[in-house]
Amino acid sequence: MSNIRVGMIGYKFMGKAHSNAYRALPMFFPNVTRPQMVAICGRDAAGVEQARAQFGWESAETDWRNLIVRDDIDVVDINAPSDAHKEIAIAAAAAGKHIFCEKPLALNLADSIDMLNAAEKAGVKHMVGFNYRFAPAVQLAKKLVSEGRLGKIFHFRGFFLQDWIVDPQFPLVWRLQKEIAGSGSHGDLGAHVIDMARFLVGEFQEVIGMSETFVKERPLPTTMTGLSAKGDADAPKGQVTVDDATLFLARFANGALGSIEATRFAPGHRCTNSFEINGSKGSIKFDFERVNELQVYFTDDADDVQGFRRVLATDAAHAYSENWWPAGHTIGYEHTFTHEMVEFMNAIAEDRQPVPNFVDGVECQAVLEAVDKSIEERRWVAISELR
Amino acid sequence: MSNIRVGMIGYKFMGKAHSNAYRALPMFFPNVTRPQMVAICGRDAAGVEQARAQFGWESAETDWRNLIVRDDIDVVDINAPSDAHKEIAIAAAAAGKHIFCEKPLALNLADSIDMLNAAEKAGVKHMVGFNYRFAPAVQLAKKLVSEGRLGKIFHFRGFFLQDWIVDPQFPLVWRLQKEIAGSGSHGDLGAHVIDMARFLVGEFQEVIGMSETFVKERPLPTTMTGLSAKGDADAPKGQVTVDDATLFLARFANGALGSIEATRFAPGHRCTNSFEINGSKGSIKFDFERVNELQVYFTDDADDVQGFRRVLATDAAHAYSENWWPAGHTIGYEHTFTHEMVEFMNAIAEDRQPVPNFVDGVECQAVLEAVDKSIEERRWVAISELR
Amino acid sequence: MSNIRVGMIGYKFMGKAHSNAYRALPMFFPNVTRPQMVAICGRDAAGVEQARAQFGWESAETDWRNLIVRDDIDVVDINAPSDAHKEIAIAAAAAGKHIFCEKPLALNLADSIDMLNAAEKAGVKHMVGFNYRFAPAVQLAKKLVSEGRLGKIFHFRGFFLQDWIVDPQFPLVWRLQKEIAGSGSHGDLGAHVIDMARFLVGEFQEVIGMSETFVKERPLPTTMTGLSAKGDADAPKGQVTVDDATLFLARFANGALGSIEATRFAPGHRCTNSFEINGSKGSIKFDFERVNELQVYFTDDADDVQGFRRVLATDAAHAYSENWWPAGHTIGYEHTFTHEMVEFMNAIAEDRQPVPNFVDGVECQAVLEAVDKSIEERRWVAISELR
Amino acid sequence: MSNIRVGMIGYKFMGKAHSNAYRALPMFFPNVTRPQMVAICGRDAAGVEQARAQFGWESAETDWRNLIVRDDIDVVDINAPSDAHKEIAIAAAAAGKHIFCEKPLALNLADSIDMLNAAEKAGVKHMVGFNYRFAPAVQLAKKLVSEGRLGKIFHFRGFFLQDWIVDPQFPLVWRLQKEIAGSGSHGDLGAHVIDMARFLVGEFQEVIGMSETFVKERPLPTTMTGLSAKGDADAPKGQVTVDDATLFLARFANGALGSIEATRFAPGHRCTNSFEINGSKGSIKFDFERVNELQVYFTDDADDVQGFRRVLATDAAHAYSENWWPAGHTIGYEHTFTHEMVEFMNAIAEDRQPVPNFVDGVECQAVLEAVDKSIEERRWVAISELR
Repeated sequence: MSNIRVGMIGYKFMGKAHSNAYRALPMFFPNVTRPQMVAICGRDAAGVEQARAQFGWESAETDWRNLIVRDDIDVVDINAPSDAHKEIAIAAAAAGKHIFCEKPLALNLADSIDMLNAAEKAGVKHMVGFNYRFAPAVQLAKKLVSEGRLGKIFHFRGFFLQDWIVDPQFPLVWRLQKEIAGSGSHGDLGAHVIDMARFLVGEFQEVIGMSETFVKERPLPTTMTGLSAKGDADAPKGQVTVDDATLFLARFANGALGSIEATRFAPGHRCTNSFEINGSKGSIKFDFERVNELQVYFTDDADDVQGFRRVLATDAAHAYSENWWPAGHTIGYEHTFTHEMVEFMNAIAEDRQPVPNFVDGVECQAVLEAVDKSIEERRWVAISELR
Repeated sequence: MSNIRVGMIGYKFMGKAHSNAYRALPMFFPNVTRPQMVAICGRDAAGVEQARAQFGWESAETDWRNLIVRDDIDVVDINAPSDAHKEIAIAAAAAGKHIFCEKPLALNLADSIDMLNAAEKAGVKHMVGFNYRFAPAVQLAKKLVSEGRLGKIFHFRGFFLQDWIVDPQFPLVWRLQKEIAGSGSHGDLGAHVIDMARFLVGEFQEVIGMSETFVKERPLPTTMTGLSAKGDADAPKGQVTVDDATLFLARFANGALGSIEATRFAPGHRCTNSFEINGSKGSIKFDFERVNELQVYFTDDADDVQGFRRVLATDAAHAYSENWWPAGHTIGYEHTFTHEMVEFMNAIAEDRQPVPNFVDGVECQAVLEAVDKSIEERRWVAISELR
Repeated sequence: MSNIRVGMIGYKFMGKAHSNAYRALPMFFPNVTRPQMVAICGRDAAGVEQARAQFGWESAETDWRNLIVRDDIDVVDINAPSDAHKEIAIAAAAAGKHIFCEKPLALNLADSIDMLNAAEKAGVKHMVGFNYRFAPAVQLAKKLVSEGRLGKIFHFRGFFLQDWIVDPQFPLVWRLQKEIAGSGSHGDLGAHVIDMARFLVGEFQEVIGMSETFVKERPLPTTMTGLSAKGDADAPKGQVTVDDATLFLARFANGALGSIEATRFAPGHRCTNSFEINGSKGSIKFDFERVNELQVYFTDDADDVQGFRRVLATDAAHAYSENWWPAGHTIGYEHTFTHEMVEFMNAIAEDRQPVPNFVDGVECQAVLEAVDKSIEERRWVAISELR
Repeated sequence: MSNIRVGMIGYKFMGKAHSNAYRALPMFFPNVTRPQMVAICGRDAAGVEQARAQFGWESAETDWRNLIVRDDIDVVDINAPSDAHKEIAIAAAAAGKHIFCEKPLALNLADSIDMLNAAEKAGVKHMVGFNYRFAPAVQLAKKLVSEGRLGKIFHFRGFFLQDWIVDPQFPLVWRLQKEIAGSGSHGDLGAHVIDMARFLVGEFQEVIGMSETFVKERPLPTTMTGLSAKGDADAPKGQVTVDDATLFLARFANGALGSIEATRFAPGHRCTNSFEINGSKGSIKFDFERVNELQVYFTDDADDVQGFRRVLATDAAHAYSENWWPAGHTIGYEHTFTHEMVEFMNAIAEDRQPVPNFVDGVECQAVLEAVDKSIEERRWVAISELR
């Protein structure tokens, strides 16, 4: 098959991560159909041109409407801020392009459903960027669950803890503004945990949550890029309109119990995207800050040597590992995107929907929104109420 | 001051732990008023006599009513099964004895309040057995919070995870029967976490929980002692009438958010009584399986060396440590009881109420019961509703 | 069998540890013949009387010569400073007493051989205090090796790291004076590692070492007890006459390679007595600061879940554990002494030599001395040269 | 400055790692002079052409003699098997090319000196591939040492543990053949530890070592690539002519003591390149399997919170981190090569020698050889004897 020609909208944190993934594919996954980095798009002409040159794209666009109708583009990769996802995705689908969309799929469930419908109607491939699924240690977790090696699942405990806005002088970046970000910790971090739970345990049935904004006003930012920003204590202040932390309890359709938390107020945790699963035959633990490792416990180990094993998921037995380096030679955050794009390219080449796709984006959004509703109405909310 | 003369009711797991603590005091805390091990009490004459000889008590009783009226007893230590606590404690108070009562204080809040009232009316000292407070690492946690070194508290995450009943053939011991134990994981394990939260963060304001009994029927036990038991798969079965797991979310009076879980269905966790606290100036983490350690993070550490410190709480700077062994020479589970009895003996000698006392037992019971109510009524319950 | 009547010489750090072990036996090991704490001995009458009362001995002596001839003593427990071991042990043997002697057995190999000969000639039981063997996690290590579950042993890496004298103002305590202590880190800490290696791997064949005294002069102490002491920077100084650190390489008789280090100059290590063993079928790791844990790796674990298991050696399957607390309820440093005394009492009751005994003390001393000789002569020294 | 044009000899494990680094530079370090991937060279025409296409080189050569004289090449990157380094490097120097050479620089000290002399005489830049220096956590270690934050250094303990040839049926790959590899664990793994010690502690003064080949015969390989290979138990066998494990003790010029070990017989260790340094003001620990982390201890931390900090070296305060991802988003093995090439490109652009360069390669070789000599002659060997 010939190359798959990509046009990408967005060129900041996620744009860099996606570009790196596209660049890595031909070298590390030579058997995967090659993505051709045809065009990158952003509103600021100088910024996007710099990104084009730096990331290695063939051309640049400043209006996404122009990008999505280009004949030389097969795929549209959307990693612009969350509030732009819907319009772009629907237009891209209408233009017959396959779509990769960063999470959260949309600012709300209704929008995400519109996006799914548009993609399905257009008959294009669609994928959503839950990249953490693609860590080899997480793939191992999935394998253990799928093969029944953990037995019946009792518990899922998932926490995404960060600390980048603990300082009340940290400025009011776009991720703290509801109209752009849609949500705070809940949608940014909690969405990843929800997807992980769905991936490993199954569908949510009902939820109840709570949330808090610990710092309600922040100085307006003077510069802003990715997760970092510079502020000025004397700058005028604005309202923080998203949650700093959201926690919720959940019951899964299969009877498992869940406890999920997303917060940006956990000092010492730069990026603790962690989970533990307990089943009748064993348990597993994962922490993204040690992305190569999975802790694994089996109840049927010999009596005198039972204990959590620290598995370094870099062996030949582990997903993707043979494409990288010898056993024990670790990979990092960015590789999750490369693996994600392996799935996207393969799905297009094999004419099947990639996983996770917009259905997963919608389901995740439904859970997010059910949690929001449960917070607002202070009661348990069934996911089915939302659909 | 002369010795404090103790009569103890109960001689199984907790009776052994308390006896060991009393025995350790004169040797390791020679400046503390000495507990005199006057009498031990249990219903089975042979059993209690064996315990008397083994644990080193001067005499034995088979009826607690006889014990509490003995003139040569100053203190009654109650560690019989939970359903017996109330009657004994009220009678002991009426007899003018100081009271140490194992947790949970009672089977329900009303009973625990009766016990507190009786003790207060009688003017006796009363203490409740939340022994985990007395690990030096937990004392260090308290010190850091109290001195403001963690700043304003945002989050408390507490988990008590065990795995001793994951096997569905594990028999129906008394801890799985509501009429004796009052509660399952929630009252047995969750109570410790609730107390830890109250000790370190402050009072609970409102809660919402969920619970599950994963294995609803179990074989009746053939033998039973402490946490271990032997069963027989062919034995007749009985209903498990307590929770296997209970989780809840909480809001504290000071605005902090809490997530608490107690389960006996977490394979690989023999006794993970763990918590994490995040504050504006730092964070701490504790896991009872590594009882000598506290993980400590400070936001004001130099930029390039920020990270959780693994503090081994065996230095001279740590509570109780100089009474034991040189720095780095660890202690274990049993020592938490010894420290607890240091507090109890000191409080009596100093004519003050020990901490934690029945007030703490009542408050813990109120939270437990609020969680139960929140589960039953599927809504947030304020602790104030219960009082 | 009737009680075994003990007379103990020494009442500081080790005297306290031994006393605690004797006290614990009847309660936690009721089936073991009971040690009767008949007499404690020390030169300072007031000090020893205080220890007697505090530790629970029946009587006190101020001259060990009186103690060892008492008719009401079956066993002499020697934990006086190292320079006194030889004379006491030989006299105790002559008096027909069984002997427990703390490590190091003597100040040098010749003395230790004299002690062994005296004990053998007298036909008494003799034991040496390598207490670390008796941690349940170490017993598990032994079991794994003995049962061949690690296969052929390739490597032993043992490190005893402490940091209590890093400060150059720490005073010149007796452990830093060769005429009393015999040796510094090497004899105090290295001896434990050597014994561990002999216990788990087998006999040493040849060694080569190096050592250093980083701080060559220290203030004379104003007070001194156990491992702690107070000094005064203005106090007159004296020469440190022992090693601060000693390292050596070793070849074992079975072909395994060893690397061993003892130092008191490793900041952050309060008491890291650690080892790792690599064999053809697996590996194990131990660190005394986490005394309840053994890390275990097996080469024949399934391909996708290979990793070191953290085994908490508190299960019923682990040595001594059922005598203490339920699984997951940890023990500490002091318990190694209790287990040691279980072996000593059992050996006497069963009329067999305990293990480890003076033969082990002699072999350890031979290795220590071979290392010293290798340092002095800057060459490999076979252990056989010393005997 | 215009691009720096690279010709690379070798296209297996290291060739892949270097190619990836060259590709990453323009994207992640846009301010660094860009390496232009002009030509890749290998003896097998089909193999090198495949690598060319996969790794993204402009042209391919099958004879390195042709490569090094090409006008369009500024730099020769040598990562062919070790036995080819010398001839190529000397010829490249003669051709006036800057040289990057993988470690070990040569098969022996004399050869490495010849290479250094040739490079110096030609006035070209020369660098040697000690990539582990370039992990951000190791750069932090260097910074702490250099700024005196660890005080005077007492100890260096370095271990490179692997397990890929524990199975005696693993075939006789080129790394196990002295005539090609020069050395076994010692030169392959130990060289990295020696360089780390030199980087962080300083020059070696004298050493004494031991080594062993545990499996002396192995089946001849049927296929071979990188660190993996497939064998056949029935294949004819050949002699293993290198060491499986080499250990040595060292004294550094500054008085510090060292213990270093390299082995391929440590089950459970895929790639444990670890070290610990103890100084008068603190200690640090590193393990490559957790490449993003440095453990740091300071003696002047407050009394009650002393402990090793786990520093995740992904903050803005850490070397290279701002070029990658936000704090907490980890990198892996391959990034050490990218950073290495940053240094190489910068040095050329700034007309200075890169570090580490052939001097470091020579010094490392001198230590390796001193250890070999110490093993052969069973005595301490001063590094100065070798020069």
